[in-house]
Amino acid sequence: MAAPLIEPVARLIDAFARLPGIGPKTAQRLTYHLLRAPDGEARTLAQALVDVRDRVVFCERCFNISDAPVCGICSDPGRDQTRLCVVEEPLDVLALERTGELKGLYHVDGIGPDRLRIRELLARADEAKATGAPFEEVIIATNPTLEGEATAMYLAERLEGTVGSITRIARGIPVGGDLEYADEVTLIRALQGRRAV
Amino acid sequence: MAAPLIEPVARLIDAFARLPGIGPKTAQRLTYHLLRAPDGEARTLAQALVDVRDRVVFCERCFNISDAPVCGICSDPGRDQTRLCVVEEPLDVLALERTGELKGLYHVDGIGPDRLRIRELLARADEAKATGAPFEEVIIATNPTLEGEATAMYLAERLEGTVGSITRIARGIPVGGDLEYADEVTLIRALQGRRAV
Repeated sequence: MAAPLIEPVARLIDAFARLPGIGPKTAQRLTYHLLRAPDGEARTLAQALVDVRDRVVFCERCFNISDAPVCGICSDPGRDQTRLCVVEEPLDVLALERTGELKGLYHVDGIGPDRLRIRELLARADEAKATGAPFEEVIIATNPTLEGEATAMYLAERLEGTVGSITRIARGIPVGGDLEYADEVTLIRALQGRRAV
Repeated sequence: MAAPLIEPVARLIDAFARLPGIGPKTAQRLTYHLLRAPDGEARTLAQALVDVRDRVVFCERCFNISDAPVCGICSDPGRDQTRLCVVEEPLDVLALERTGELKGLYHVDGIGPDRLRIRELLARADEAKATGAPFEEVIIATNPTLEGEATAMYLAERLEGTVGSITRIARGIPVGGDLEYADEVTLIRALQGRRAV
């Protein structure tokens, strides 16, 4: 009995709802917002979407997102070329860069067997060694999940002997967190990772 | 010290973050998702955004969204032409249509002084009366907010004498809700609106 949604509206709701974390209700709200918003708002978003696909590539060295064949970090001679941090996703690079703690390079390793850039990582490490400047440290910053830990273990094994040291980011209680609510595995990791004060 | 975001990425994050209910973190997550998703996903969304602005208009009679000068509800002879429901937004039409309770027509009145279509509503009521088929009932379904109530009062005053009856949707405890957590005004409205069982 209800009047059906007109087609372009239904299609936009559908496209929004396909995004992660956007449910059908939110998709509807966003669509109706854009219907009433000034014309430029929808078109700016549309253009930004097209641009991001047309102009963003993956760095051929580290596989982070880039607007050039080699990304800004890889091509920056000011970065420490002896330290390499392995992460799962471009977003992780963003998060780590925000800390300002790392001045080295990255390798975006991907998640899941289809996307893993492990071969390329090993090739990078081999090449660095061959040119007489092996990586002094490879920091494995994959997520502390089952999959991330497995990748870390595997990488550590494979990189052994090719690079100086291989380190893993600490797992423990997040700053501002509460021991009482931490899961057992995290608590065990926090204890195992304890350091002299 | 942190590597700056590349421009098309920054622009898409920015465009997403301008949407209501999308914070900067979510905007970032959506953008990075679309960077890794199949190419079609971003382009489909972009096209849907353009289409919705190119192909959707406002019905010249009821001001609901439409893909024709007169919308599907207004042009449907099967709808009850004697009952008119006044709402604030196109989304409200959607919500009410979903109930299947109303078989009449709508008038999307808008919110705020700039958008109010009150003049057009009064003209519709006048015209219906002049043609010998006045609206038998006008249901005022503006939101039970200060603004919506003020609009409702004003409309009731202005429509008096031009239409049969003027009704207002019930305000009360939502189904599944809890008296204990209801605010006082809602409780008062729920009591005032009580009916014989």
